[in-house]
Amino acid sequence: MSYCTATYRLYDDKADFRKKAESIAVGMTVGSWTELPQAKRESMQKHLGQVLNVEVHEPEGTKPGERYADVTIAYPDVNFSKDIPALLVTVFGKISMDGRIKLNRLGFSDEYLSAFSGPKFGIGGIRDLLGVHDRPLLMSIFKSVIGLDMNELRDQFVKQALGGVDLIKDDEILFENELTPIEKRVEVCLKAAEEASRATGKKLLYAANLTGHTSNLKSQALKAINAGANALLFNVLSYGYDVLHELSSDPEITVPIAAHPAMAGAFYPSPHYGISASVLLGQLMRLAGADLVLFPSPYGSVTMPRDENMAIRDELLTDALPVKASMPVPSAGIHPGLVPLILRDFGQDVVVNAGGGIHGHPMGTEAGGRAFVQAIEAAQRSVRLADYAEDGHPELKAALEAWGGER
Amino acid sequence: MSYCTATYRLYDDKADFRKKAESIAVGMTVGSWTELPQAKRESMQKHLGQVLNVEVHEPEGTKPGERYADVTIAYPDVNFSKDIPALLVTVFGKISMDGRIKLNRLGFSDEYLSAFSGPKFGIGGIRDLLGVHDRPLLMSIFKSVIGLDMNELRDQFVKQALGGVDLIKDDEILFENELTPIEKRVEVCLKAAEEASRATGKKLLYAANLTGHTSNLKSQALKAINAGANALLFNVLSYGYDVLHELSSDPEITVPIAAHPAMAGAFYPSPHYGISASVLLGQLMRLAGADLVLFPSPYGSVTMPRDENMAIRDELLTDALPVKASMPVPSAGIHPGLVPLILRDFGQDVVVNAGGGIHGHPMGTEAGGRAFVQAIEAAQRSVRLADYAEDGHPELKAALEAWGGER
Repeated sequence: MSYCTATYRLYDDKADFRKKAESIAVGMTVGSWTELPQAKRESMQKHLGQVLNVEVHEPEGTKPGERYADVTIAYPDVNFSKDIPALLVTVFGKISMDGRIKLNRLGFSDEYLSAFSGPKFGIGGIRDLLGVHDRPLLMSIFKSVIGLDMNELRDQFVKQALGGVDLIKDDEILFENELTPIEKRVEVCLKAAEEASRATGKKLLYAANLTGHTSNLKSQALKAINAGANALLFNVLSYGYDVLHELSSDPEITVPIAAHPAMAGAFYPSPHYGISASVLLGQLMRLAGADLVLFPSPYGSVTMPRDENMAIRDELLTDALPVKASMPVPSAGIHPGLVPLILRDFGQDVVVNAGGGIHGHPMGTEAGGRAFVQAIEAAQRSVRLADYAEDGHPELKAALEAWGGER
Repeated sequence: MSYCTATYRLYDDKADFRKKAESIAVGMTVGSWTELPQAKRESMQKHLGQVLNVEVHEPEGTKPGERYADVTIAYPDVNFSKDIPALLVTVFGKISMDGRIKLNRLGFSDEYLSAFSGPKFGIGGIRDLLGVHDRPLLMSIFKSVIGLDMNELRDQFVKQALGGVDLIKDDEILFENELTPIEKRVEVCLKAAEEASRATGKKLLYAANLTGHTSNLKSQALKAINAGANALLFNVLSYGYDVLHELSSDPEITVPIAAHPAMAGAFYPSPHYGISASVLLGQLMRLAGADLVLFPSPYGSVTMPRDENMAIRDELLTDALPVKASMPVPSAGIHPGLVPLILRDFGQDVVVNAGGGIHGHPMGTEAGGRAFVQAIEAAQRSVRLADYAEDGHPELKAALEAWGGER
């Protein structure tokens, strides 16, 4: 017998958590058990959920509202189809509405995993595309692009590209529009990328934002790919994980997909409700096939506690899954002075991702990219940023003066 | 100029909420404003978000953690495509992750609404299909159906149908499976429905659960419809609203769709984060075209505060939207004794929906349905349930004895 598991944190001042766990295990699978005749029980046994673990936390002095239990339930694979909506409805459908309960972790059976091919490129594939295997990658984000025409968009692209970044991503709020439709901006930007590459000697991926109605996403993606797109950006949570799963496993979608966390804050920040960041932006994004996953960093302006961030990282990278690893992209409020911290936490396999930290550089966008390139060089050589800045790297110096240095 | 609006509740002990509101209005639209040259401002004006209202709540004696503001921002329609993912990413993408913020209300412009046809049937259409215009409807939920074969499923269907219910819905955790594939169970159950109708004199809708991969949903729906399906059940939140929108607006999907709230609890219960129940299960379900919308009732086992429930009802029914009204289906823990309360809160246009309150009836499932029919009759005639029960309605009497009467 094969099971997927779900671990919840349940808050309740008085509940018998063991009983509550049993009621979930039965209620979300066979519905009732004790009332079943013995003969029926035998045939239903394979459908019955199992309580794997109940850990009650109520140390002395626990105040009202603080008593909780971590509960793990095993759900028989035979009960649901091998897709993400079916798993989510099974493990967090009705019970998401039943008191203070948060879904903190999923466990996928081999049988369930057999239906998922995971990221098509993953960390290795993205590195191969860029020809960069020995350092963290650098991504720049288009900023304030709503209302820009193609020339203005191109200008901003070129400045970012000349700064020496490895990836450029669309703003996630840039939807299909008349000024810069996806196939046109891909064509124009990729041509600009080629020119920039001749100057920088670096390859460049441009993640174009895939938007519109669900049933049109594939044709939009193909339109972009036919126009030369070498990556896509996707607002997964506004569409559902299954849409990403279908795109990522489609043989015609031949480019990496970067998953944007837009709307994720509607799920993860409450301790009492919702779905943890490591499930949402770690386990499910990777399972659904995201090659790169953006999430709020613990450093910058839109923050997340560091342990939650490390939990996302672990899920994106763990060897325990039989699919490629997804590249972590901690985002928001990143400036060059944070690079050593990012590398300490994430190692080499990370994308340093900046918007304001590039465009807001005192010497301009191009210098903003350079300052990051220099910061990464310094960190790779274990040279202090301040020292490297003084050593003929004025862009890094200006960045450190503007935003501060290693913390 | 045309705008959609979003109203948020922001919690912060110290923030200048007016400034925060301005930063959302600018940040989620044009990105920056004060730094733009005058000429550029003129061309960007039409893309700039507007702060419509900031209402700070900090009465004397406000404790830490309690200070909040209700903030309404207008987002120019020109910035996003006319689909639900684009609206959600625009109004609650990045900012969902930026501190304690909850999306409490949306406002749709006429321009945005022009892309939505709403529920295909709505309350009137469902009543026409059933030929019932003068009373609340009654729905019964399949229970404990995982692992049942077709004969067992049929038996349960017949018992529910003979009780005199108007609608029967699949359990939302019944996915595509070998024992009871959708086209087979539709065929078998609809044939049983015809037989039952001859006994009860009532028409019957059976909402079959639409599951599987997103791109296969339409063909699954057509398979069911070709087999005779006269309604569908759909776990909207595990797929995304746009999927419902595309199904509901598809001319080939010729039956009503009932939206199940599975996973909704991951969004609405926290006061500080997420999306309110009235947006999630009211505004967006109706906009996306749900003919019936299930949500936790304020009466039963899985509860929601009454004012939230009434807010959902109001959004499903309001004349302010140019699309058909969706039928409210307050669910979970409903028994016959609650019927007068449901009708007091919802009036005639409601589905009384029960699972355990029908199958758990002391005299069996069929009697369980009858008890509800009797309770509705009594409430319609303004007769007290207890009196009606004594007046030759033993099923209602047994239900009141089991679960209690009018509260």
